[in-house]
Amino acid sequence: MTEQTGTTPDQIIQVGLGFWASKALLSAVEMGVFTELANHAVDLPTLQGRLGLHPRSARDFFDGLVALGFLRRVDGKYANTPATDLYLDKTKPSYIGGILEMANLRLFQHWSHLTEALRTGKQQNETKDAKGSPFEALYADPARLKSFLAGMTGISRGANQAIAKKVPWRQYRTFADVGTAQGDLAVQVVLANTHLTGFGFDLAEVGPIFEEYVEHHRLSDRLRFHPGNFFEDSLPRVDVITMGHILHDWNLDEKKMLLNKAHAALNSGGAVVIYDAIIDDERSKNAFGLLMSLNMLIETPGGFDYTGQDCVTWMKEVGFREARVEHLVGPDSMVIGIK
Amino acid sequence: MTEQTGTTPDQIIQVGLGFWASKALLSAVEMGVFTELANHAVDLPTLQGRLGLHPRSARDFFDGLVALGFLRRVDGKYANTPATDLYLDKTKPSYIGGILEMANLRLFQHWSHLTEALRTGKQQNETKDAKGSPFEALYADPARLKSFLAGMTGISRGANQAIAKKVPWRQYRTFADVGTAQGDLAVQVVLANTHLTGFGFDLAEVGPIFEEYVEHHRLSDRLRFHPGNFFEDSLPRVDVITMGHILHDWNLDEKKMLLNKAHAALNSGGAVVIYDAIIDDERSKNAFGLLMSLNMLIETPGGFDYTGQDCVTWMKEVGFREARVEHLVGPDSMVIGIK
Repeated sequence: MTEQTGTTPDQIIQVGLGFWASKALLSAVEMGVFTELANHAVDLPTLQGRLGLHPRSARDFFDGLVALGFLRRVDGKYANTPATDLYLDKTKPSYIGGILEMANLRLFQHWSHLTEALRTGKQQNETKDAKGSPFEALYADPARLKSFLAGMTGISRGANQAIAKKVPWRQYRTFADVGTAQGDLAVQVVLANTHLTGFGFDLAEVGPIFEEYVEHHRLSDRLRFHPGNFFEDSLPRVDVITMGHILHDWNLDEKKMLLNKAHAALNSGGAVVIYDAIIDDERSKNAFGLLMSLNMLIETPGGFDYTGQDCVTWMKEVGFREARVEHLVGPDSMVIGIK
Repeated sequence: MTEQTGTTPDQIIQVGLGFWASKALLSAVEMGVFTELANHAVDLPTLQGRLGLHPRSARDFFDGLVALGFLRRVDGKYANTPATDLYLDKTKPSYIGGILEMANLRLFQHWSHLTEALRTGKQQNETKDAKGSPFEALYADPARLKSFLAGMTGISRGANQAIAKKVPWRQYRTFADVGTAQGDLAVQVVLANTHLTGFGFDLAEVGPIFEEYVEHHRLSDRLRFHPGNFFEDSLPRVDVITMGHILHDWNLDEKKMLLNKAHAALNSGGAVVIYDAIIDDERSKNAFGLLMSLNMLIETPGGFDYTGQDCVTWMKEVGFREARVEHLVGPDSMVIGIK
């Protein structure tokens, strides 16, 4: 999505109708196509029957997924690609489809109100007419909360693995992942850096979900849950504080408050690591980051995404002595600030 | 959309969230961004004010359109690209945004029911619970009809211009475009081939809209409207019959009936020219064609898209002595059958 498109009529129309491919993938994840095909190939009548599809369009649907690169078809049998087998089979720990389940259940509908959002500046999700934090309703319902947190893991996995490698972790011994959700960033970091111990910091309701996820990875001896509300409580004292897809949820004052709290909590020489789909400084290349900012319009009262330069400026304002931007993977970059 | 994608987590997620870019473009067309910017560049506050956008996300929205390649930003002023100025400014005859207006108003919502459509085999649009032709309700409302027909022009323009060049028109003198809508295919064909005269064939309600469009192009001396219902009436006798984005609306029996009527109407040596987003014979490359077939699931009781080989087989079945497939532009190909 960072390439220039739309120079011919059919390219313009294909972007405008791009929700077709998107929704086909979302429906495939919803119906468990990739879980059904895990580790084995299946012919059309069998696959159609197992998924409960009407014969009219089942073949077009599966062949569409082949043409989009999400399935293979060999000798009349459908099979996952190596990537979809790894990332979209719900039974594997490498599953990242939670974000797509959330997009299918919630965002696709909410985004149909984009024009209204742009005209009013107001969010368009379940909290459209509610007051208070956009996360309150979510955190009050354990099933929705778990699904949301798994979605966050899905959208973060690639960046989490890059952070586990690209931050100079050797210099540090302790860290806290703030707004940790299931804890995938913390898990990836300690998996790749065996000398580290860390906290997952989030609202108390998240505790059991974090602990289940960490236990599943057999990391309970090195990762502990630290309950807290980052609007009310201070953050734990550590060498490194990470915040992945957190800063973009909040308005400018809230963003600076969070950076300020991180600065206060860090040991001297420590680092804050912020990551998001950070927008390029020219604001003309990272389309996904700019669209993610519109997603914050749809989802939150005041959130927005930002450029690396924006974040560096805020970090220096709250007292970090140096700050730099480093690309992670796809649309994601991190900003590292040193105390 | 014909390239293999989805081999990394972020690529998978970007397709799954591809409806963001799609909806941003649809909202831009809905709000008239490209019409507002026609022929001149405008700064952020002015553009935001003219479109009535809230300040919260206007800049992200416009910069998102820059990053997607639909706007340029030079010295702080937003401007159309040459392509969006030509194709998405509503005041120009080259406007193709009708299909995007229709996608924004109707299809985006209807596609949110794709899973239900796949499970039931039933259409999910306004005619979900209605009987009879999916076009009846549409044709009964002149404003909706005009918008739908303009949409058809939008999705057909590139292919229409290719057909005007690639069919050996020199061999023929008369043609009828069956299911002509606004008549853009007929218009493009006679603009490029000054020796031809032709008919636009469609339901009587379409007549005034066809005639307005043809008059606008000053072609009323060479193009005439021929009212008719292709389920009840025979087609006019001519050298060439064209049908663009018609065959995919109907079930297999109806498709063959239409080809049979075309064969009966043609002069000896004449040609039928069928075009659609024709699926490759392997059914593994033209993702747009396969998704268009799912769009026929959403929109019609029995329609589906098809491969070139499918169409060649049907043409030979109804008596055409030869038939061949030729690529037009983007996802569209034509099948030419010779009587």
